[in-house]
This record gives sequence, structure tokens and C-alpha cells, in this order.
Amino acid sequence: MINIAILGYGTVGSGVVEVLSTNKDSINKKAGQEINLKYVLDLRDFPGTPIEDIITHDYNEILNDESVHIVAEVMGGIEPAYSFTKAALLKGKSVVTSNKELVAKYGPELLAIAKEKSVNYLFEASVGGGIPIIRPLNQSLTADEIYEITGILNGTTNFVLTKMDKEGRDFDEVLKEAQALGYAEKNPEADIEGRDACRKIAILSSLAFDMHVDFEDIYTEGITKITKKDMAYAKAANKDIKLLATSKKIGNKVYARVAPVMLDDEHPLSHVNGVFNAIFVKGNVIGEIMFYGHGAGKLPTASAIVADVVDAVKHLSKNLMTFWSTKKMELMSIDDVPVSMFILAKTDFYSAAKDSAKKLFGPIKVVEVIESEEEFAFITDVKTEKEIANLIKLYNAEPSIRKIISSIRVEA
Amino acid sequence: MINIAILGYGTVGSGVVEVLSTNKDSINKKAGQEINLKYVLDLRDFPGTPIEDIITHDYNEILNDESVHIVAEVMGGIEPAYSFTKAALLKGKSVVTSNKELVAKYGPELLAIAKEKSVNYLFEASVGGGIPIIRPLNQSLTADEIYEITGILNGTTNFVLTKMDKEGRDFDEVLKEAQALGYAEKNPEADIEGRDACRKIAILSSLAFDMHVDFEDIYTEGITKITKKDMAYAKAANKDIKLLATSKKIGNKVYARVAPVMLDDEHPLSHVNGVFNAIFVKGNVIGEIMFYGHGAGKLPTASAIVADVVDAVKHLSKNLMTFWSTKKMELMSIDDVPVSMFILAKTDFYSAAKDSAKKLFGPIKVVEVIESEEEFAFITDVKTEKEIANLIKLYNAEPSIRKIISSIRVEA
Repeated sequence: MINIAILGYGTVGSGVVEVLSTNKDSINKKAGQEINLKYVLDLRDFPGTPIEDIITHDYNEILNDESVHIVAEVMGGIEPAYSFTKAALLKGKSVVTSNKELVAKYGPELLAIAKEKSVNYLFEASVGGGIPIIRPLNQSLTADEIYEITGILNGTTNFVLTKMDKEGRDFDEVLKEAQALGYAEKNPEADIEGRDACRKIAILSSLAFDMHVDFEDIYTEGITKITKKDMAYAKAANKDIKLLATSKKIGNKVYARVAPVMLDDEHPLSHVNGVFNAIFVKGNVIGEIMFYGHGAGKLPTASAIVADVVDAVKHLSKNLMTFWSTKKMELMSIDDVPVSMFILAKTDFYSAAKDSAKKLFGPIKVVEVIESEEEFAFITDVKTEKEIANLIKLYNAEPSIRKIISSIRVEA
Repeated sequence: MINIAILGYGTVGSGVVEVLSTNKDSINKKAGQEINLKYVLDLRDFPGTPIEDIITHDYNEILNDESVHIVAEVMGGIEPAYSFTKAALLKGKSVVTSNKELVAKYGPELLAIAKEKSVNYLFEASVGGGIPIIRPLNQSLTADEIYEITGILNGTTNFVLTKMDKEGRDFDEVLKEAQALGYAEKNPEADIEGRDACRKIAILSSLAFDMHVDFEDIYTEGITKITKKDMAYAKAANKDIKLLATSKKIGNKVYARVAPVMLDDEHPLSHVNGVFNAIFVKGNVIGEIMFYGHGAGKLPTASAIVADVVDAVKHLSKNLMTFWSTKKMELMSIDDVPVSMFILAKTDFYSAAKDSAKKLFGPIKVVEVIESEEEFAFITDVKTEKEIANLIKLYNAEPSIRKIISSIRVEA
């Protein structure tokens, strides 16, 4: 029998308790021994619930109990999660977590302590909810050199974009509905501004490229400017708009970016709809692979936590190698990243607007105008972000152009 | 340094040599030590190639070399692969393989020997080419009770069906083109009759349900009867026809089936096109997940073989638990499996054909007739296979019906 403790009895924590109870027999069989939940740490009491007798308000009780070998940290946030995790690892306890902020910020340090102490710090649940992606990156794609990871890593924004697309509705309206349904938080900023996806792609990139990618270095743009008109233009061009978190190797440099992108509807990620997440990976021998599933939610996230607990049980005093160097990666400047751009302008002179676009941008692909006659839309060739930004400024100043109203990156 | 041997220098074997050389440094780093290819077993010589000095024609040389710890069996077929594998495991060498026939037939026996000898028998490459699915099933989905696995597990048939669909062409014509392109073999029977997919779903089902599913018990139907007309009707009903290999738990019984299925185009598998494969899994806590990628091909398959070699190196004398009981699973009779059916009949009396369909099948969903006026098409409610088969016989004998020309299973 092995004793574990859960830190935090919120959505994920209560999900972990539920999963451990629902699938008790099969989980114990796969772990090779009985998993016993000895403590749940929370500030609150939960009288009348199954955990009422094992709740504790004092972390030291867990820390100093030598019979506890595994701690599931599902509190979220940096503190006290960071101090609690570090203390547990230093005491020789393995820690499993869903805390993407903590992993993105202190992953390499905590992994180094785990290695030093021959225990494990596992974080499958921190990216993509239940989708197995951390373990496959560490253990299945070992024959490959990975050169691209692109993911739909945030269910809230994907839900909003899918609804805008399918129902032809505008951002604010759909966001309100998502909040009412509980798919978006009251304060949705971390999701809609791309910050949640940014932390997750930082974690995946660090693992894929074996250097520490600092999430603060990643160019991050949210979906708040996307309109129903953009959606309609995307559809007219056989594309879908998705919030993509990408990191990609070009030569020996890597760029990372979170931004809404018009994606060709032949791309496997373009069919990932609603609250689903997916991670698309390219390796130099495996080619393209994709992992798809529920990117959040109580039970899927708890499923990943419990799978990590099982792995921790099976490797009680054997550190599973995780390659995440403390060496910081210098990302390419966003200015130098190659990109193709969809541009939509208001104009009273369609032909002149087209001529100006060709003059400035060189070869362009004209996108058929929807509804209004007073617009001109096109997709540029690939240039650097900086070149495109400069050309957009120049184009906006052309006499034929009233105003550029949208510019959205495009991927084939 | 650890010595390995490759059995068979065909497509996959030469791919393994290429991957080991291309990604030498990163592979050695992930394995924690240098992997040295000491022998390649083949009947042929390969003068002038990099393996010329390590080729051997005598398996005993490998078997009796105690410095060889891992054998990659990529010969295919039952014999001599079975005898070679068994002998290697009994000598305390780990074996990794892409041989789906051998794994489907002798998996439990070979796994038991590996366990007994504290070595490993790994077979990630036997299903889905490079797609990580065996390791995720064993190590990532441990918190779940899996109740369904459905896969597009054969690239040849998926290529043929995709081409028939996109180009409105007939089976024979597309198959010939696939053969000319090397996507289908000269003798394509194992693929187009579903036998390849059948062995793969037998392996996945055995792992998911922890009982031995004998591939010979699985109802298997190929794609040879699918016509371009069927494709057009599927499209009219917003569906795609895919060769699906499925196993599903209903109560405490399991059924397994390989057959072409009309799949709703909202289903993630419906967008898996060309030579790509995907495996869709449902678990009681994780919900739906899917794994997508190159299901075959030299380098993707070699990538999976080498990833297994790395895992074998990391667990040299520690058996990784694989749950695959030798206890044989009694599958549900196909007669009792619930199914909904698309039925297309020739008729000179549309209304009468519709009335007869309603009389016999109860509630039906009429599918709009394409092109010809002399047809009637509909989708039945869910009934058992046996009931549907009986009703089809009766319907075919109705005076309003000239002949039933298609019947294809339908999934939402």
C-alpha cells in the first residue's frame, strides 16, 4: 500500500478523489499496489463528504508524514504551490501536478531536485488536460528530432471561435454565453489574451527542444480582435481561424508564438472544435502526428493526475529522465519570423486597392469579397513579420485605402 | 554502450538503420548510453552498404552473443520470427517488433516469457506505424476504464477510400493507381479485405480489455464492395465512408468488428484522410481522445522501433508491466451487435419502396436520392445485426423493390 496526499480540494482535486474511487480496482492493479488517499489539504472543511476525516489544514502534517510518498498538487498558482512542491521533493516525495504556471516558471529547478532525490516531478495534467502529451514527448518520440509543435491548447478560446464560426456571431456575445455556460471564467483574460496557451507552449517547447523556453519571451496575442466578418472571410478562403500556440525550429533557431491564425481546412487542427484541444507535432523521422482530446475539465484533468500517480508508484525511487535543461533558450525575435498575412481593407476603389496591394506586397492571393462592395481582401506571400508590419503601415496610407480593418496570420 | 541486432533488412529494417544514424546523438542522449548496432540478420548480402560488415546469415551468432541485449525483429510473418523472438527472450534479450501478425497471435505467450526473464517485449510499431498508441495505452491511460477503441488502422484502404471520395472514382480504378504508386501491394488482399486492420484491433483490444482477443474471432469485412455511388450517397448525408476497426464494451460484453462504416462528418475520424491512420479511444474518465499520424512507411515505423529500443535500454533488466492476459475473451456474436444501416435499393416505385421500408424497419431516415430516379435510400434505426439482416432479406423480396444494391453500417 502506498499513501498519497492531495493539495487542494477544488475542481481538479475533487475530480482526483472521484477517479481514485470510481476506478479503484483497475488503478490499483495497474499501479501494482493499493493507492491509499491519506490526506487532503484545503483551507476549508468538508463535513458530510467522504473526505471529511482526512482533511487537514496543516501542510506540515503531510510533509512530516514519512509514510506519504506521493503528493498531488492541484492548487494552481505560484505560491504556496511552489514552496509546498519544493519541500515535498526535498523530503523525497514524488509530486504530480496540473499547475501549468508553476511548471512553466519553475519546471527545470523542480525537475533537478526530483532527479537529485531520485523521485519524480510529473506534470502530464499541466498541458492538454487528459490528453497524453508530456509522457509521449518524453518516452515515445525519443527516436525523433522534433522541429515543430503547434497546439490548440485552450478550450475556452476554441469554444468561442467555434461558436463564432458556426453561428456567425460576434466575439463579445459568444464570450458572454461561454461565461454563462461556465466554459469561460468571470475574468476571462488569461484565456482570451492567450496567456494560458502561452504557458502551455512554453512547457511543450522546453521539452521538445531541451532548453528552457521562458513563457515571458513568447509573443502572445489573443482573440479579442477577431470578428464575425473575419470568420466569414476565412470560410470563403476554405480556412478556419484558431488560436494556435506554436514553436518551430528554423535552421538552428526557434521561434514561439501564440496568435489567432487562419488555418487551411485540410490541416488536422482545423477540425478541432469546441472545448477540445489538440497538439500537432512534426518530427524528422515520424513525420506528422497529432494528439486530440478534452483539454480541460474535472475528470479528464484528474485522469492525467491519477495516471501520473500510477507512474510515480511504479517508479518510487527511480527518477524518470525528463529532458528540460535549465539553460535558457534565446528565441528568435518575432520581427524575423516568416509569416503570410490575410489583410482586409475598407476601400471605395477596389481596383486601385488591388493595384496598391500588388505594388507594395508583390504577389498576393485575392480573397473574394463577401457582402460589402467596399472592401478588398488578400493574402500576402511569406515575408518577415517586420516587413509585413511595415508594408501594412504603407498600405494603410495609400490613397485608395480608407482603413485596414483586419490582419490575421495564415498557415497552409 | 549497448549492442543491438536487427533481424531483417527490408523496408523497416533499413529504416531503423537510417534513423539510428540520422539521430544518433539525440537517441543516445535519451537512452542514457550509446546504442551500437552490432548485427543485421538477412539472407542477402549488402556489399557496398554501411551494413556490409555487420551482416550475418546465422541467427545463432546473435543469439549466442551475450553482449547483445536487444533484438529488433522486423522480418514480419510468423516463422521464423516466432522462434527467433522466443529464443532471444529465453536468452534474456529484450525484443522490439513491428510484426503485428506475430504479436496478435503469440503476444501473451511472448510477454509472459519476457516477464519471467525480467526483460521486455515491446511492439509500439505493430499498430499505427509511428503513432504512439501501445505505450499510451499501457502507461498514460492507467486511470481509465476504456470502453471503446475505434481506429482507421490501414493506410492502403484509407488512401483508396479518400481518393474514391474526393475524385468520384470507382474502387478498381483507384486500387490500380494505388498499386502503381506503391501505396497498395501487388497482392492487396490482406489490406482491402480488412485482415491487416483485424490483427491490429485484436492487439489494441487485448491491451484495453486485458484479455486475449483472438483475431480469428473478429468479424471482418473489407472495402471491395464500396462503390462511387455509395460515396456520393454518404456525402449527401454529410457522412464519410471509412474502414473502421472497432471494439466496444456493452455492459460486460465486448464486440469487435472490422467493416466499412458511414461516419458522421462531425466525428474526428472522418477527417483522417489518405495514408494517415488514427486511433480513437473512449475512457470512463478521460472522455474521448484520438491519436493521429503516419500509420505505415519506412521512417515512421522505424521511429517507433527505435523509441522501443530506447525504452528497452532504459529498462534493461526491469520488465515493464503490460496487461495482456492469456485468458481468451469470448466476444459477442456479431448477430447480437447493435447497428444502424444505410440501405440503397433499386426501385421503379419510390413511394411504395418507402412505405415498405417503414412497414418493415419502423422509423427510418430517408436519404435524398442522387442522380437516378430509380433508387430509394434510407438509414435504419439501431437494431441487432441479425434483425437487420432478416429485414434486408424481407425488404429485398418486397414487390416494390427491384434489388438492394448497398447496405453499409452507420455510426453517429
